[in-house]
Amino acid sequence: MEITLKAPLDMHLHLRDGDMLRLTAPLSAAHFAGAVVMPNLVPPVKDLASLSSYAERVQIATDGVTKNHEFACYMTLFFRAYSATELETVRAQRNFFGIKLYPAGITTNSAEGLVDWTAAEPTLKCMEELGIPLLVHGESHGFVMDRESEFLPIYRRLAESYPKLSICMEHITTAGAVKLLGEYENLCATITLHHLLLTLDDVIGGSMHPHLFCKPIAKRAEDRDALLEAALRGNPRVMFGSDSAPHPRHAKECCGCAAGVFTAPIALPCLATLFARHGALDHLQEFVSGNACRRYGLTPPAREVVLRDEPMCVPASYRGYGQTVVPMYAGEEIPWRVVKNW
Amino acid sequence: MEITLKAPLDMHLHLRDGDMLRLTAPLSAAHFAGAVVMPNLVPPVKDLASLSSYAERVQIATDGVTKNHEFACYMTLFFRAYSATELETVRAQRNFFGIKLYPAGITTNSAEGLVDWTAAEPTLKCMEELGIPLLVHGESHGFVMDRESEFLPIYRRLAESYPKLSICMEHITTAGAVKLLGEYENLCATITLHHLLLTLDDVIGGSMHPHLFCKPIAKRAEDRDALLEAALRGNPRVMFGSDSAPHPRHAKECCGCAAGVFTAPIALPCLATLFARHGALDHLQEFVSGNACRRYGLTPPAREVVLRDEPMCVPASYRGYGQTVVPMYAGEEIPWRVVKNW
Repeated sequence: MEITLKAPLDMHLHLRDGDMLRLTAPLSAAHFAGAVVMPNLVPPVKDLASLSSYAERVQIATDGVTKNHEFACYMTLFFRAYSATELETVRAQRNFFGIKLYPAGITTNSAEGLVDWTAAEPTLKCMEELGIPLLVHGESHGFVMDRESEFLPIYRRLAESYPKLSICMEHITTAGAVKLLGEYENLCATITLHHLLLTLDDVIGGSMHPHLFCKPIAKRAEDRDALLEAALRGNPRVMFGSDSAPHPRHAKECCGCAAGVFTAPIALPCLATLFARHGALDHLQEFVSGNACRRYGLTPPAREVVLRDEPMCVPASYRGYGQTVVPMYAGEEIPWRVVKNW
Repeated sequence: MEITLKAPLDMHLHLRDGDMLRLTAPLSAAHFAGAVVMPNLVPPVKDLASLSSYAERVQIATDGVTKNHEFACYMTLFFRAYSATELETVRAQRNFFGIKLYPAGITTNSAEGLVDWTAAEPTLKCMEELGIPLLVHGESHGFVMDRESEFLPIYRRLAESYPKLSICMEHITTAGAVKLLGEYENLCATITLHHLLLTLDDVIGGSMHPHLFCKPIAKRAEDRDALLEAALRGNPRVMFGSDSAPHPRHAKECCGCAAGVFTAPIALPCLATLFARHGALDHLQEFVSGNACRRYGLTPPAREVVLRDEPMCVPASYRGYGQTVVPMYAGEEIPWRVVKNW
């Protein structure tokens, strides 16, 4: 069996910077026509100058892979109080995609995130007027299993307060989030590969698996199933966003392991496996590209990626530039592979 | 401030075997007058011969520490279908304490655990008649956060079916278990140090902490608070059982980290800290010895352990016999210490 995906997009990607960027960006560029690149560097990407220079570094890092095809970097700014002038200026940038909002301290490199929602209002209003998408890491600071559920009223308030603001609930993990999505036209959501596959049982139910540890944490089977249903049934409000988040191996296999699952190089084969298993391959194109293109009016570079149900062995790690990153399913065989990617 | 504990007991302890036994048994014997030693070795302790020889190895391992005082090893058998003759014979053994029941596959070295409750009935009946305590790892095979709650109906059924059987709900972690405890005279429970301190947020809410990963997993704040209240308020049905469970460092700081928190050498100082902080030091004696002695009719070796609110630095690891084990609070300062232990 084969499937040809046109211009697959990763709508939520962490590439980091420096050597880690150089190692991981080509792995995404090898399979995807483009990606929304997250701004949570240290310090965060929160002005036009750092946006431009980061975009340039990302483009340089993918150059080796993309000699034969283009890789679209949809760059994001880290949410803060921006003036109307700043927002107008950044909106005019070719690579600019949207603004990512992190509650302060909620995940990796989010120390400079939002503390005061009231202070955020003028910026949100201005984003709404200018048509700049808001991407949100939607978690409270509550109990780890409740954080997304506790954030849903904030999504609701945002959706009602800014009816023309395009709001993306990033990496949703609960049945409640899927349900909320259906209530407001201005809400959409990204769903990761790992949240389509895992529950908390996979992370800590048997032994403890640092390479499956992420934020938001994987939830219950009924939550995973609600996400799966949205993706497999072609819900037009959900888009694939891997949230692939590389950390050096030593930061994962230790006490105090960092949150993030590295899936970029296996995402498309695993999605094909999953959609094929559920007889839903005909909805994969929409999930990995169509829904996002329609929602955001994107016209990604032309590109075809062909996948076939031939097994591939996932490398034990990806190495380069002095970095070692362990992917999900490291050393395991997965049933599909990319057979043509240009 | 100082407190003198008479004959403190650890009513749930894993000592393992071989080099790990030689490293960890003296650490328990240094602070406790005795301990209930769990039988989940590989293979499990499930006949009189292995019980006797394991008891002997434990005794030898503690000999160096206990020249000046005795350390009582309350040995346990791994639950299986035992004949009346076997049970009568083992009951006559000086060191024998009770039988520990593990549902198959529920935790470390439990592969040979119980599969068929019906087949267990004659043994349970016979234990009831002979007055042999049943100690239970009470978890279902369900979702990790629900396993103890789902097991409570089984505790209820056991308590009702065998009204004279002494049943210990080991290492309870939920408010529901504390509540159930009050409903049946023949139920008691052990509570660990770490479940009095931790919630799931401590394990995976920030970064991921393999040395705090255990089974049953730490639950919600309201669960921890219910356990705390039972311990601090002097509930006579609850007893301290550390469930201290050493694993070699390499089995903890890796992919697929083993479940178990190593607390034996810091348990009494941490309990004193906790009880002092809550103004409940007058209930500590009951929790660490009195309740267990009354419940089980134990007469542990005379021994006094004096603790004082002087800080101690927890070692980064305990090493010996080629083993390295990392304790909870490794490298941190804790506010109380043992100042006299004989």
